[in-house]
Amino acid sequence: MDIASLIGFLLGVGMFVFGVIYGDDGINVAALGSFLHIPSVLITIGGSLAGVLASHTLEDFINGLKGFVRIFKASKADISEVIKNIIDLSNIARKEGLLALEEAANGIEDEFLKKGVMLVVDGTDPELVRGILETDLTCIETRHKKVIGFWQKWAELGPAWGMIGTLIGLINMLKTMSDPSTVGPSMSVALVTTLYGSLLANWLCSPVANKLIVNNDVEIMIKEVTVEGLLSIQAGENPRVIEEKLKSFLSPKMRESMSEEQAGGEA
Amino acid sequence: MDIASLIGFLLGVGMFVFGVIYGDDGINVAALGSFLHIPSVLITIGGSLAGVLASHTLEDFINGLKGFVRIFKASKADISEVIKNIIDLSNIARKEGLLALEEAANGIEDEFLKKGVMLVVDGTDPELVRGILETDLTCIETRHKKVIGFWQKWAELGPAWGMIGTLIGLINMLKTMSDPSTVGPSMSVALVTTLYGSLLANWLCSPVANKLIVNNDVEIMIKEVTVEGLLSIQAGENPRVIEEKLKSFLSPKMRESMSEEQAGGEA
Amino acid sequence: MDIASLIGFLLGVGMFVFGVIYGDDGINVAALGSFLHIPSVLITIGGSLAGVLASHTLEDFINGLKGFVRIFKASKADISEVIKNIIDLSNIARKEGLLALEEAANGIEDEFLKKGVMLVVDGTDPELVRGILETDLTCIETRHKKVIGFWQKWAELGPAWGMIGTLIGLINMLKTMSDPSTVGPSMSVALVTTLYGSLLANWLCSPVANKLIVNNDVEIMIKEVTVEGLLSIQAGENPRVIEEKLKSFLSPKMRESMSEEQAGGEA
Amino acid sequence: MDIASLIGFLLGVGMFVFGVIYGDDGINVAALGSFLHIPSVLITIGGSLAGVLASHTLEDFINGLKGFVRIFKASKADISEVIKNIIDLSNIARKEGLLALEEAANGIEDEFLKKGVMLVVDGTDPELVRGILETDLTCIETRHKKVIGFWQKWAELGPAWGMIGTLIGLINMLKTMSDPSTVGPSMSVALVTTLYGSLLANWLCSPVANKLIVNNDVEIMIKEVTVEGLLSIQAGENPRVIEEKLKSFLSPKMRESMSEEQAGGEA
Amino acid sequence: MDIASLIGFLLGVGMFVFGVIYGDDGINVAALGSFLHIPSVLITIGGSLAGVLASHTLEDFINGLKGFVRIFKASKADISEVIKNIIDLSNIARKEGLLALEEAANGIEDEFLKKGVMLVVDGTDPELVRGILETDLTCIETRHKKVIGFWQKWAELGPAWGMIGTLIGLINMLKTMSDPSTVGPSMSVALVTTLYGSLLANWLCSPVANKLIVNNDVEIMIKEVTVEGLLSIQAGENPRVIEEKLKSFLSPKMRESMSEEQAGGEA
Repeated sequence: MDIASLIGFLLGVGMFVFGVIYGDDGINVAALGSFLHIPSVLITIGGSLAGVLASHTLEDFINGLKGFVRIFKASKADISEVIKNIIDLSNIARKEGLLALEEAANGIEDEFLKKGVMLVVDGTDPELVRGILETDLTCIETRHKKVIGFWQKWAELGPAWGMIGTLIGLINMLKTMSDPSTVGPSMSVALVTTLYGSLLANWLCSPVANKLIVNNDVEIMIKEVTVEGLLSIQAGENPRVIEEKLKSFLSPKMRESMSEEQAGGEA
Repeated sequence: MDIASLIGFLLGVGMFVFGVIYGDDGINVAALGSFLHIPSVLITIGGSLAGVLASHTLEDFINGLKGFVRIFKASKADISEVIKNIIDLSNIARKEGLLALEEAANGIEDEFLKKGVMLVVDGTDPELVRGILETDLTCIETRHKKVIGFWQKWAELGPAWGMIGTLIGLINMLKTMSDPSTVGPSMSVALVTTLYGSLLANWLCSPVANKLIVNNDVEIMIKEVTVEGLLSIQAGENPRVIEEKLKSFLSPKMRESMSEEQAGGEA
Repeated sequence: MDIASLIGFLLGVGMFVFGVIYGDDGINVAALGSFLHIPSVLITIGGSLAGVLASHTLEDFINGLKGFVRIFKASKADISEVIKNIIDLSNIARKEGLLALEEAANGIEDEFLKKGVMLVVDGTDPELVRGILETDLTCIETRHKKVIGFWQKWAELGPAWGMIGTLIGLINMLKTMSDPSTVGPSMSVALVTTLYGSLLANWLCSPVANKLIVNNDVEIMIKEVTVEGLLSIQAGENPRVIEEKLKSFLSPKMRESMSEEQAGGEA
Repeated sequence: MDIASLIGFLLGVGMFVFGVIYGDDGINVAALGSFLHIPSVLITIGGSLAGVLASHTLEDFINGLKGFVRIFKASKADISEVIKNIIDLSNIARKEGLLALEEAANGIEDEFLKKGVMLVVDGTDPELVRGILETDLTCIETRHKKVIGFWQKWAELGPAWGMIGTLIGLINMLKTMSDPSTVGPSMSVALVTTLYGSLLANWLCSPVANKLIVNNDVEIMIKEVTVEGLLSIQAGENPRVIEEKLKSFLSPKMRESMSEEQAGGEA
Repeated sequence: MDIASLIGFLLGVGMFVFGVIYGDDGINVAALGSFLHIPSVLITIGGSLAGVLASHTLEDFINGLKGFVRIFKASKADISEVIKNIIDLSNIARKEGLLALEEAANGIEDEFLKKGVMLVVDGTDPELVRGILETDLTCIETRHKKVIGFWQKWAELGPAWGMIGTLIGLINMLKTMSDPSTVGPSMSVALVTTLYGSLLANWLCSPVANKLIVNNDVEIMIKEVTVEGLLSIQAGENPRVIEEKLKSFLSPKMRESMSEEQAGGEA
């Protein structure tokens, strides 16, 4: 599990609560009360979610919401893990032939790699293997982009509906303004929706969208490494050359730690 | 019919009405009155539509307005439906020859697929088939983009004309400000156009533009699958290979449900 | 002539005037007076135009201003007209040879098509024909983009100088603020420049820029169709194939109306 | 010298001064005094320049500042001039051979064209000539983009530091607010930095950046014409064909004026 | 060490302090006190950092923070240095063969060049050399972009959390507004977070992000020159041609200074 986002969200809440209750007269927990205003929650979150719903199909909307949990998952496949898998496969293919990969494929958890290996074992034409895997990759990215688009749209509509709520509050207040002493509290309530909209975008939606983009980039790179590696195996390239090729995808630090691990493993 | 946008719009209206009538003293339906101001409607919607009209030709403007109803239509062709059609066609072509496709084409509702099949039956050069279908595709996308551009332009000009209306109100009010007690109600009226502009953009135009983009993406992908499939049929590729190729365009879930359906159909 | 932009501009003015003179006490034409403030016109329009001038060469600046009239011109060449012309030319070339095109070219008004036909008649190398025509096309687009850039820059600088005018007014007012009763009218004057800047951008410049972009897209597409058609003629392709190819550029509705016309013409 | 930018800057200053001194009571030159506030100049210009400096290396910063004078220079090489030069060179090469170009090159002022001619005379491989000249072109553009980036960054940081100055002024004022009669003048001073930031961006930096972009586009196009022409000469193409090719880069008006000139020259 | 950023940061702090302490009554150092408000620091910096953390994985977050020190480092490898190295290597390869490069490689500090030379010495296939080095280059750029993204995200979230802090302050103030004389100081405190957010973005994050982009561009260009040079050496090209090719990457000034140096070195 990737806890960065979780820590980030909790820290954000903490900062907000601290800002609210800390005053010149010390801690004042009661102040939190004036920041919880259910009708304002409804108009800001409800209104912006309504806009997001109108912007998508029902299916994309639900998938978008579900995408939230994905930001806490560490990417399932570690890139150095994948590279090691491919190098192992290339050694097997070299020594025992392409058909021996079928058995090896059973031990692989990564669905994408497994599918690729099966295509290679079936003797599919290399061009077609590349075509099928790259279409797969494009479609995965398209699906991810829809989820990212959901959160970006929400990050955009949240502050907008916050402002709509504040305008409603201001207009109501100004229309009936008779006693100046009520202006303060009324404006205070009106501003709460702007605050909600701003928090929605900058505490929740924008970080979620960004994290999903980051995760997507990592996943796509891993899949590209996989395609490159599988096609090299199919072309019968030397395992050492494949290793050299794939290691270029690693950062210097990861390359070192991988070499050490291998050295350790071989020792 | 795709009800997501409809639900979204109704929910948005609901949230807005709730925000207006709900006060600290309970529900106050009369408050809605101060939010309906015909001159403000005219200046915000009229002014921004005038700007949108000036930005386009008369034909594009009318097509843009008409594009609104399209967001409620579920995309006519389901992608798994299209893929099944193409696999069926490839089986026919394999067994009975390309000419047998002519009869099969009569049963196809999708105009684009039908046109492609007819080109294949006529023995058109594959390069030309691809050329004609891709030009078609580009022109469809160009037409869609014009409609999307209409709504994006409106989403941009709506808040701008809302602000123009508010500035007019403020200037009028400040010019003749003698009695401070009238400031409140006057400003309240002036702010209504800003509210209209914000609602126009964030409740209506921006979601419509986004939905049209999403629908366009789906339609273009389906048409790309069609072109890919038709050219494979014309090249005489094996139906099983075509199936494998086209299925890469589906999400894992859709792939499963399609396999089950086939299994069911074959049982 | 294309009247959409003209109607749009007039409607925009109408909405603005209506917003100004319509008050709770009925129509008040005198209110228009406080919205005409010559010094504010000078600082907003003058200042932003000065910025636009500093952003371009003198020649581009004048061409940009001149570009305004172009938005009222319907695009000279109708795309179905152009396609019909090219199909006619392909028939002539098929029956009487490429040299017979010279005479036919005399009747063509479209300079670009004419130039292309003359290149074909002169027996220029196909690669060179494409090269010359595409360079021509790129340069036309470059010139259009400069004009579009002029209006986009003005749309950007207009509100900025409007705000500068308002800041000047505010600073002057605050500096000498002694009598609170003068604050209202002074702020009213200060806000007029913001209003001018906003109108300049959202009533005039942004629609003009958008209309020029739309017109440019149409013109470029027509020219691309022309190049495609001319090269097909030079390659001696079948007129029916050329017709099929070019018709893909039309929308379904235009295709139908063209077929009817042909049927009518042939009857 | 290109005076458009100079006129633009002077006109901008004029508009600003006019806006400041013109009041309802006639011209009031003393008002200019309250708009000159040295500490505000320091914080807005100094702060934003500090940010620009921190954003670049020292060398890029100095080059960026120096880039200012370049906007007053008319582009050294006129495109029709360059085309005429290349056509002359192609005639010489045709009649007297490539080696005769060496002598002709001595009379050329344009360094880039001269370098290209020398490469051709040296019998360098055409691929290498293109490679070297295009690398040169890319590097020129990279250097230009750094200068443009400098002014764009300044245009971005100017208003930001203006707002920082205003915030400082407001906080200082509010903290010690005892006598309401001092609020006006204090806010007036606070707003001056916002005005400076806005002027900095919209009067100076944004036009300079735009002008540099325009100049860069012209220079790059001229250099591309040069490369195209030189390679045609090296390939031994017919001077008439080269002329036809290069003239596509000219606008119709320039083409005419060039033809007239030639006719005049030949008469 | 590259001191531009350091000077820029110090100058920015100086301008800010000057703006705070300089008043109409002369220097007032005590004013600095009201600009240091620990809870405001916490909510602005803490909240925005929490958002940045939620937007990234823990590893990317730490790397992003670490990236700060990199803006003070002058790019390790000077481009003219690299070009001279490659020309030297090409001379060695020409005279003593590719294998002689192994020894020469030991003296090279630049890891990337060294790796490339070793690949060439090992007799790796040129396509593979290019492939490995370009993958390396892409991965370096990807890592840099993550660090840049960290600072851009912070520059975006800083002002947003500053505004959240101000909203909290305003709501708290308005809710309990009884004594008008306390409004000033309370608003003053509320605005401090907006000031912090603005400073965070425009004094720190935005310049850092920009400097990292500039440094990345330089590093990538140097590495591209290296790849180009190494492949030319492997292809056995003439050292003089390689020199001509690589010098196109230099600015005219650098080219001159390099020629002088060589002349000096050879004298």
